[in-house]
Amino acid sequence: MNPTISREDCAARDVADVLAPLREQFELPAGVVYLDGNSLGALPAATSARLQQVLAVEWGRGLIRSWNDAGWIGMAQRVGDKIARLVGAAPGELVAADSTSVNLYKVLAAAATIAREDGASRRVIVAERSNFPTDLYIAESVARQHGMDLELLEFDDIEARLRDDVAVLTVTQVHYRSGRMADMARLCARARAAGVLTVWDLAHSAGAVPVDLNGAGADFAVGCGYKYLNGGPGAPGFCWVHARHLARLRQPLTGWMGHAAPFAFEPGYRPAPGIERCLCGTPPILGLGALECGVDTVLAAEPLGGMQALRAKSVQLSQCFIELARQRLLPAGCTLQSPADPRQRGSQVSLGVAPDSGIDAYAAMQALIARGVVGDYRAGDGSAAGPHLLRFGFTPLYTRFVDVFDAVHALHEVLQGAEWRQPRFAARAAVT
Amino acid sequence: MNPTISREDCAARDVADVLAPLREQFELPAGVVYLDGNSLGALPAATSARLQQVLAVEWGRGLIRSWNDAGWIGMAQRVGDKIARLVGAAPGELVAADSTSVNLYKVLAAAATIAREDGASRRVIVAERSNFPTDLYIAESVARQHGMDLELLEFDDIEARLRDDVAVLTVTQVHYRSGRMADMARLCARARAAGVLTVWDLAHSAGAVPVDLNGAGADFAVGCGYKYLNGGPGAPGFCWVHARHLARLRQPLTGWMGHAAPFAFEPGYRPAPGIERCLCGTPPILGLGALECGVDTVLAAEPLGGMQALRAKSVQLSQCFIELARQRLLPAGCTLQSPADPRQRGSQVSLGVAPDSGIDAYAAMQALIARGVVGDYRAGDGSAAGPHLLRFGFTPLYTRFVDVFDAVHALHEVLQGAEWRQPRFAARAAVT
Repeated sequence: MNPTISREDCAARDVADVLAPLREQFELPAGVVYLDGNSLGALPAATSARLQQVLAVEWGRGLIRSWNDAGWIGMAQRVGDKIARLVGAAPGELVAADSTSVNLYKVLAAAATIAREDGASRRVIVAERSNFPTDLYIAESVARQHGMDLELLEFDDIEARLRDDVAVLTVTQVHYRSGRMADMARLCARARAAGVLTVWDLAHSAGAVPVDLNGAGADFAVGCGYKYLNGGPGAPGFCWVHARHLARLRQPLTGWMGHAAPFAFEPGYRPAPGIERCLCGTPPILGLGALECGVDTVLAAEPLGGMQALRAKSVQLSQCFIELARQRLLPAGCTLQSPADPRQRGSQVSLGVAPDSGIDAYAAMQALIARGVVGDYRAGDGSAAGPHLLRFGFTPLYTRFVDVFDAVHALHEVLQGAEWRQPRFAARAAVT
Repeated sequence: MNPTISREDCAARDVADVLAPLREQFELPAGVVYLDGNSLGALPAATSARLQQVLAVEWGRGLIRSWNDAGWIGMAQRVGDKIARLVGAAPGELVAADSTSVNLYKVLAAAATIAREDGASRRVIVAERSNFPTDLYIAESVARQHGMDLELLEFDDIEARLRDDVAVLTVTQVHYRSGRMADMARLCARARAAGVLTVWDLAHSAGAVPVDLNGAGADFAVGCGYKYLNGGPGAPGFCWVHARHLARLRQPLTGWMGHAAPFAFEPGYRPAPGIERCLCGTPPILGLGALECGVDTVLAAEPLGGMQALRAKSVQLSQCFIELARQRLLPAGCTLQSPADPRQRGSQVSLGVAPDSGIDAYAAMQALIARGVVGDYRAGDGSAAGPHLLRFGFTPLYTRFVDVFDAVHALHEVLQGAEWRQPRFAARAAVT
């Protein structure tokens, strides 16, 4: 079947796209259609020069003096304030620091402590069973340390579980496998009505979809710097705490940067009055420098409509992908594993390949990558209900409509031509 | 008084120094004598090109594929193995990750858990009262979480306190203020005899003095990447665990990189069999790349005698400084605040300026820095017994004997000429 959307249609949409110039902010390799920005964002063109400045001028020449003269000492806050603009937080409410996992530990522990102070009967942490594993592992640890139980539920069962024995609910807003987007405002309202604190992981939403933490009445949030924020591999994450909790917030990673007076060298810990109490060790300046460049690429959309405009394009890209996939990929053995309704979907689309389909999904993705289309593969859980996934992220800052067309076309050829059967595509890499 | 060591003597020692060529590994600013490598190591010449490679080639072109193709996924271990060679650890025993504070939290919590399992009566964590504050703050948090007491002692009182109610002793081997170096083997032996676990902070010793963790029989260690390891501002730290503890080690920061099978995406946490169980979030690749270049500058001394040769030069540098200081600076109002015996001293010398001396020590350091000699200032505790400190670190990789001469000469002029009285030197910066 010929697609109802032609490559020319897609090219025309790119020409009409007011966000198209934002792509020039990135160093994208020639001949590659990169649809894995939901795993590792692309390199901003500004990052190399900025890091060179940090290295040669600030570190090399300024040496120790750059903690003051180059503003290193305030970078966690400065970059945090920029991220805040993307997630509905106010200046001074968010810091960039540590990894997402470490930040999740801080805020989950803080939430558990507050919940316990407010009512000894609240002793359950609720999480989504299929959440990204690091979230579950950290929740498991916090639950153990606080004498609480961790209950893992299907997403659709969470609301009904928010009763008066539940201390904390932790959810990743956009699911890493399916791209399902939770209704943050609704879940926060239900949780608040039940006296349950919410901890949001924005790994797949910050910079991808409009987020309004304060508007939704969320309690805590963490997020990732290296996906849609384009901060580079292993970039610092971030954490946010609603102002109503800050004064009583205690988190266990009480390093010196979280102290009220880090350079007074007092023997006892006194937390900083603000969000700085969520800082721990010395800020990672190279990582923060690169992260700032990445966040700036998203903020560059502000004069063009900001996150709302990026979201509108993201929906158009993913709808285009789904329409083309329906015509060319579902008949070839794939299934749509992301919500069809864009209001319930983040900025990615996942296609399923059933284990009994006869298609080696891992090899198919490798064959696709060999054709220059980079998505990623996530193994299913082995059950018929858990197909292997071919995951495609749409980053409206640099993904074009022709990229969507070319990706579907290439995957169609890979599946039709049984290219994936070539032995060279079957070898598993360490990171899948 | 004319110094008994002339600048010509120092220049001759530099000419004769077989380690002198190692200085060429660094980008040092012209006209600066940098004696603050104990706070922030200098920029290695290789770092800019390496980071450019990570950015432009690995991230920019390789994108997500570089987790495998560029070996990112094993960087924490690879850099850890290099650091291991400097601290008497075996390959596979040490990882580079997170900040020193976060790593200290991991191993202190692990040690407290093991100690508690071994005997419920052990409920005290002992630390040195004047340790670097972040160590005390983290110990305070771990003690609270484990229902233990934190006892802060003077260093000389520690040995006698190692009785059967003590669970863990945590010490920074080389003291950040005085440069006092603890006898690791002796303290480990006393602690082991008393059934006390030792947690060592190597912030001021890794890359500065020979360390033999396995030889000393230490239990746990952490360290800093941005001081003598030259990893750059806020570089990742490291942590090490003695092999005898690894199988039962549990630490609370149970992120996915510490899992036995991170890419199996299992819902429950199973710690990796090795030191990887001390990893948490996604490794910070830019920071690790720079740290590797820094560690390589120290490893470059291996063909020239390694840490033993570096130590010998470090002692010569600091002895030279002390001799010159005795002649020119102590008469001008300074006191020697570091141990005179080099066997009890790390790679720094601290001079004291009494609060009632009439000299503004902060301003004096600023005036010295204005003359191109960079040391740092650490405020006293306000008591007569706690003078303000002028701290000078000697990094044998790049510090020359003429630098030592020039530093003493410049400080002598600053003190004699009362240059420090100029108002421009009195203004406090955020980071001191």
